[in-house]
Amino acid sequence: MTTSLPTTTVRRAGVDDAATVHAMVLEIADHEGDGQHVHVDVPRWRELLARPDVVVLLAEQDAEAVGYTSATRQLHLWSGFDLVALDDLYVRASARNRGVGEQLMRAIAAYAAPESMLVRWELYETNDGARRFYERIGATVRPKLNAAWRPDDYGPWLG
Amino acid sequence: MTTSLPTTTVRRAGVDDAATVHAMVLEIADHEGDGQHVHVDVPRWRELLARPDVVVLLAEQDAEAVGYTSATRQLHLWSGFDLVALDDLYVRASARNRGVGEQLMRAIAAYAAPESMLVRWELYETNDGARRFYERIGATVRPKLNAAWRPDDYGPWLG
Repeated sequence: MTTSLPTTTVRRAGVDDAATVHAMVLEIADHEGDGQHVHVDVPRWRELLARPDVVVLLAEQDAEAVGYTSATRQLHLWSGFDLVALDDLYVRASARNRGVGEQLMRAIAAYAAPESMLVRWELYETNDGARRFYERIGATVRPKLNAAWRPDDYGPWLG
Repeated sequence: MTTSLPTTTVRRAGVDDAATVHAMVLEIADHEGDGQHVHVDVPRWRELLARPDVVVLLAEQDAEAVGYTSATRQLHLWSGFDLVALDDLYVRASARNRGVGEQLMRAIAAYAAPESMLVRWELYETNDGARRFYERIGATVRPKLNAAWRPDDYGPWLG
């Protein structure tokens, strides 16, 4: 018996992909128990996807989205240049373990390479699978402390 | 005996402060053993300080700079809004332990408050003093893993 695996293609998402992107952002957020932190809706995604500093790459099989990665270009003050800040990397359950994540990261590399941009992101300490994946493709993973100061936290410090 | 401590004022740096900002960035970078990662020079700082998304606040005593904090406004994809990404907080040795760092953070709060922006930054795990300072002003500090993928790392994954 021969099985034919679907071919995966990756392309940059445009404004007309807003609903697809929004659906997958909700999927990853729910997966991480973070659904309440997603405040972007489809009309807002249309605006975001029109921006040159918003980079969303879609992985598709037979014209159906099976995953995406999202990133923003951000100014890095010490270097004076932009870097690529990766936000999400997500592959739908039906398409996992077949190299789609790696293909999306290759597409990020292709985006970053012409300007020799650094690609940066963060992950949870407990996410061993992701850490192994990122180290396998050559990323350096280091423990850091991340600090967040929310309006309720800094309110008492306002003059 | 009475001693009079100099009054500290904080203001946003403009293009004419490029040389002052550059000098202090080199000081903090040398302090962290990171001098080789600073590639911005004074002319580039003049360009950066003209940008609305670059926020550098200067602390001064008797019109002399004694510290600064630098930040960039960055788009946060899930919320669809900007956040304040803090880069550096630095107080010159002569002015330490007199509340200048706190005054700079209050100024960051004042910048972030009108738009209820989240303020975010990272610190080294080993920096206990900084961690205590940030927790005292109400920030939430959490361990995370940070990943970096440099051109030499992702080169082998290009097409």
